[in-house]
Amino acid sequence: MTATATNKQVTLKDYVSGFPKESDFDFTTTTVELRVPEGSNSVLVKNLYLSCDPYMRIRMGKPDPSTAALAQAYTPGQPIQGYVVSRVIESGHPDYKKGDLLWGMVAWEEYSVITPTPHVHFKIQHTDVPLSYYTGLLGMPGMTAYAGFYEVCSPKKGETVYVSAASGAVGQLVGQFAKMLGCYVVGSAGSKEKVDLLKTKFGFDDAFNYKEETDLTAALKRCFPNGIDIYFENVGGKMLDAVLVNMNPHGRIPVCGMISQYNLENQEGVHNLSNIIYKRIRIQGFVVSDFYDKYSKFLEFVLPHIREGKITYVEDVADGLEKAPEALVGLFHGKNVGKQVVVVARE
Amino acid sequence: MTATATNKQVTLKDYVSGFPKESDFDFTTTTVELRVPEGSNSVLVKNLYLSCDPYMRIRMGKPDPSTAALAQAYTPGQPIQGYVVSRVIESGHPDYKKGDLLWGMVAWEEYSVITPTPHVHFKIQHTDVPLSYYTGLLGMPGMTAYAGFYEVCSPKKGETVYVSAASGAVGQLVGQFAKMLGCYVVGSAGSKEKVDLLKTKFGFDDAFNYKEETDLTAALKRCFPNGIDIYFENVGGKMLDAVLVNMNPHGRIPVCGMISQYNLENQEGVHNLSNIIYKRIRIQGFVVSDFYDKYSKFLEFVLPHIREGKITYVEDVADGLEKAPEALVGLFHGKNVGKQVVVVARE
Repeated sequence: MTATATNKQVTLKDYVSGFPKESDFDFTTTTVELRVPEGSNSVLVKNLYLSCDPYMRIRMGKPDPSTAALAQAYTPGQPIQGYVVSRVIESGHPDYKKGDLLWGMVAWEEYSVITPTPHVHFKIQHTDVPLSYYTGLLGMPGMTAYAGFYEVCSPKKGETVYVSAASGAVGQLVGQFAKMLGCYVVGSAGSKEKVDLLKTKFGFDDAFNYKEETDLTAALKRCFPNGIDIYFENVGGKMLDAVLVNMNPHGRIPVCGMISQYNLENQEGVHNLSNIIYKRIRIQGFVVSDFYDKYSKFLEFVLPHIREGKITYVEDVADGLEKAPEALVGLFHGKNVGKQVVVVARE
Repeated sequence: MTATATNKQVTLKDYVSGFPKESDFDFTTTTVELRVPEGSNSVLVKNLYLSCDPYMRIRMGKPDPSTAALAQAYTPGQPIQGYVVSRVIESGHPDYKKGDLLWGMVAWEEYSVITPTPHVHFKIQHTDVPLSYYTGLLGMPGMTAYAGFYEVCSPKKGETVYVSAASGAVGQLVGQFAKMLGCYVVGSAGSKEKVDLLKTKFGFDDAFNYKEETDLTAALKRCFPNGIDIYFENVGGKMLDAVLVNMNPHGRIPVCGMISQYNLENQEGVHNLSNIIYKRIRIQGFVVSDFYDKYSKFLEFVLPHIREGKITYVEDVADGLEKAPEALVGLFHGKNVGKQVVVVARE
């Protein structure tokens, strides 16, 4: 007889419009057999850490041809998915054995049966660093910062770099990568605590609280008297408008996210796009999955920096799957300080 | 004693706000000595053809740090400048002799004394084509279409291409370049006459009158049921919003101009920018002057096509410097059909 376990899951009640609320999610408990089907190449995993990421808001909305190009909408009544760090319990897959660790796209539940897929699931090879880092610094957000900065921005030493949502999972790393290259880096965030973090812990040259600025254009002018060469875009809307006015000729704007817009029924209008011509600006949307072939190159780059203590990384950890909806919803109100993680099991 | 001539000039009365009007310009008549100063390397030219171009609106506004990155504002009371085809009357410059032809940035007047400057003035080497073509097809607009399409768009055979302001100087050429490469090309313009020109003369696969469409998003959906790979942006505003919704993943938007916005006190808001992420769109502002090192390569490409009748080119010709303000102002109301030229002298 096969052993079974109860399996708590986080499900989406219905498509979300506006800001997501905790009540948009439900908990379901099912039973899972603790084995993989005979002859299958699937893997049974125990989920340890969940990654809360802004793009997940896009998947909560009604299916739409525009957003479908990025990610499939979640199915109401079903568990939502996200980036998860998991331990293999049983494996029918030649590349995975019991006890192995992986990170990748997995349902938000205690146990999952998955079919490991290249560029969707990644075997964890280095365990001398905290495992939760694979939801952030060493996972999708880290790879996003790396690809977005080095591959999309074409950055040069001495350039000025502005990062919005700068204390978040991606922003804190972009800032540090830019400093390593010898750029002048300014970040913005939504609280004094986060701004202090940027200046004292992450080594940004300057930082400001965007909620306390009545004129974002003037705030950027103050921080960048000689203009912005690179704007790492995480928020969109009014901030993008203020940036466009302050960009330098041949400026680059990699678009990683527009979190300020995801919850709006009608997105804010951006009025200063003529600057794209005036200043030959390049605005480039990108998605990390297009860059996963560079993941091992990224690890080679980043692991020595972590081991030598040259990269600082801040996580905001919620404890227990029960806290997952609250943690996820909090992202859209800027409640997290650093990378938002949910611990499902510490093993 | 040196011969002199009267020299009629088109001057700007004051900085323009809103749509430019004929009354924003004045005519001044001065006297010019028909020689170049002893020992100088300047050149006296007789101006033959003036090019009316949308970017000139940007130079009519008050000096502004944003627009200064593209082009210097005109000086009230002084002649405006633009692209001009001219004949050399006297030369102190080693590269130019009497009788030579050139095109480049020159004041709007009958005679000018200029100092020929690389990438600002270009010697005309091929005179088996109409000279006025050097204000368009063989000048700045032609080079803009060439660089914008081949260098900025990264176009591939079989892709879908949408061109706004498609019967204008640049648009008509972009459409033809795209057809040569084997793309599916749709253009929009603001009258039935222009739309007919696109379909019957320039060989666009389809075309529509944007003024007759109540829903631009739906119009583009109708023309591009499988989405747009490349949008050659000439207009901005509402059209860009409609395009963003219809773009395909990895789509490219070279931004050549945003003529619909130049005359607005408050530019229209563009609301659908999140599509930049959903679809990894690249929006790239560009300015032709960054590509002038490729001008001879461009001529090698385009001259054989012209001689073999494989490129169609339509000009809208106004006669006489007196007509220059009217012709220039007409651009912003879409009065021109094809490239707007002003003949100052047929010699």
